Amino acid sequence: MLKLAAGIDIGGTNTKLGLIDIEGNIYGEMKFPTTDYPNFDDFVYTLHNSIQNILSAIPHETELVGIGIGAPCASYFTGKISNAANLPWKGEIAVVDTVKKYYQDIPVIVTNDANAAAVGEMIYGGAKGMSDFIVVTLGTGVGSGFVANGKLIYGHDGFAGELGHITVKKGGRECACGHRGCLEAYASANGIKRSVFKLMADCIAPNPFRDITFNQLTCEMVTQAALNGNELAIAAYEYTGKALGKALADAVAIASPQAVFLFGGLTQAGTYLLEPTQKYMEESLFPIFRGKVKVMLSELHTKNAAILGASALIWAEMMPQN
Amino acid sequence: MLKLAAGIDIGGTNTKLGLIDIEGNIYGEMKFPTTDYPNFDDFVYTLHNSIQNILSAIPHETELVGIGIGAPCASYFTGKISNAANLPWKGEIAVVDTVKKYYQDIPVIVTNDANAAAVGEMIYGGAKGMSDFIVVTLGTGVGSGFVANGKLIYGHDGFAGELGHITVKKGGRECACGHRGCLEAYASANGIKRSVFKLMADCIAPNPFRDITFNQLTCEMVTQAALNGNELAIAAYEYTGKALGKALADAVAIASPQAVFLFGGLTQAGTYLLEPTQKYMEESLFPIFRGKVKVMLSELHTKNAAILGASALIWAEMMPQN
Repeated sequence: MLKLAAGIDIGGTNTKLGLIDIEGNIYGEMKFPTTDYPNFDDFVYTLHNSIQNILSAIPHETELVGIGIGAPCASYFTGKISNAANLPWKGEIAVVDTVKKYYQDIPVIVTNDANAAAVGEMIYGGAKGMSDFIVVTLGTGVGSGFVANGKLIYGHDGFAGELGHITVKKGGRECACGHRGCLEAYASANGIKRSVFKLMADCIAPNPFRDITFNQLTCEMVTQAALNGNELAIAAYEYTGKALGKALADAVAIASPQAVFLFGGLTQAGTYLLEPTQKYMEESLFPIFRGKVKVMLSELHTKNAAILGASALIWAEMMPQN
Repeated sequence: MLKLAAGIDIGGTNTKLGLIDIEGNIYGEMKFPTTDYPNFDDFVYTLHNSIQNILSAIPHETELVGIGIGAPCASYFTGKISNAANLPWKGEIAVVDTVKKYYQDIPVIVTNDANAAAVGEMIYGGAKGMSDFIVVTLGTGVGSGFVANGKLIYGHDGFAGELGHITVKKGGRECACGHRGCLEAYASANGIKRSVFKLMADCIAPNPFRDITFNQLTCEMVTQAALNGNELAIAAYEYTGKALGKALADAVAIASPQAVFLFGGLTQAGTYLLEPTQKYMEESLFPIFRGKVKVMLSELHTKNAAILGASALIWAEMMPQN
């Protein structure tokens, strides 16, 4: 009997799902536009049909052991999504209860995508066998998942791990959350665009970026330019690594992890992100932690990382308590 | 049979010990100068004799179930104290192994005093029944213990919880650790003296503190002045609460605790510390956490708090895994 967990990633644009075994092998996956379903019940009905369609196409006897879901603003404890700005459903959405209508007898777990990424790293990725580590997701936003004593820290309300909203520069850049100087204003896809524009203001050297508007510019363009040796793009990644490295030094002082895994769009820049991050983290570390904490790229940096992470929530729940 | 845990607090000046039951009742305690024992083996021999003397004076049949030790720069995992600047023993000191020579058959646990305070709060104090909380110790230094999922976070090397060394002001005050702007440079006993002097430099109003040298000034004098209505002292506590509140906002973003307990000398100022800390924390919190996190005084604010915390390490170890 092939045991499979469903991994579902609910994003603002698309929802992806896949059925995955405990080794991380994917047995069929699907994707559909989240925005096609203004009604959440209709959305879950489509999810259910998709899971059944994938299951029926697998040429083995299968057992669905649970459903893991990663979604923005989702709480592990309440099973709800609350006021997610980028999703079509407003207010409080009872994700777990609604999915449970179709799947009463198996665990259904929801958490935010960064927490799911951390559990994915623990079950399938570079954090196998580690009991204390951090995963930081660097994409549209900056999220994180902290694992301590072998367990993800959900916090008392399920919302722990908001590393993107610790202050790295007092009175610094405006952040969408209403504060100033949050890590997310520096180390996200939009943050690196802002750094390119800051550096163009600070310096005078000619650069192709001077012919591109802010709204035309993408994180991918900055990454590609850095990989091609564009000095401004490399400097923008250096600036990003500085903000991120300092934030990580604070996170290490609190949690003393064995490693920090970076995940998401910005990691495409590879060493242009990794080296300054490690360097500035080391500089800012309390002496007792120096030279002890590895900063690495996630081993789940594939297009399927989000559904892998979501499915890992189920396998982690089934592990014996340590 | 009365079950007792030994709680030992190794400080730079004195070492205190007591035998304590699971309710927090103390059955005899002692204190001797740490500095009398330049040789660590002699120190442990004296500890052993002290424990036996206390045990023999208790008029019940007793069982010593374990020995918990709080000490600066101590690692739960290695059982060692490493390079503690304020203790007479240099380099690495194998605390657990040395104590085990006398007590082979019972658990001997060492950790730093802030971690011990957190476990003490969980076993005997205001955090009973909480699975996610933070204890911050505000004394000679600033330490902390983070509890998540019902377990203290030791980190991969046993040194987690160094909240005193997260950066609250970039390029700010020099800290003894070699960095600038660490929380400890603001929210410790010395930090509040520095704030009094900063405020005397900023303002012109007459104040009794203008006739006291920095080296004459003590944290207790500032606290007493605040309690007596001295505006400069109250402002110094407000300034302390601002730094602490901002640091706590970052800590909450990471760990999402149900409550933060403040412990140590500075808490004698009561609401003069508590109110600005809560206010500035709330101001800096990521919106999702606002109004959810209580800032409270530790319920172990007695002179025996350190030995209570150390003994709690043993009871926590004996609790069923959650």
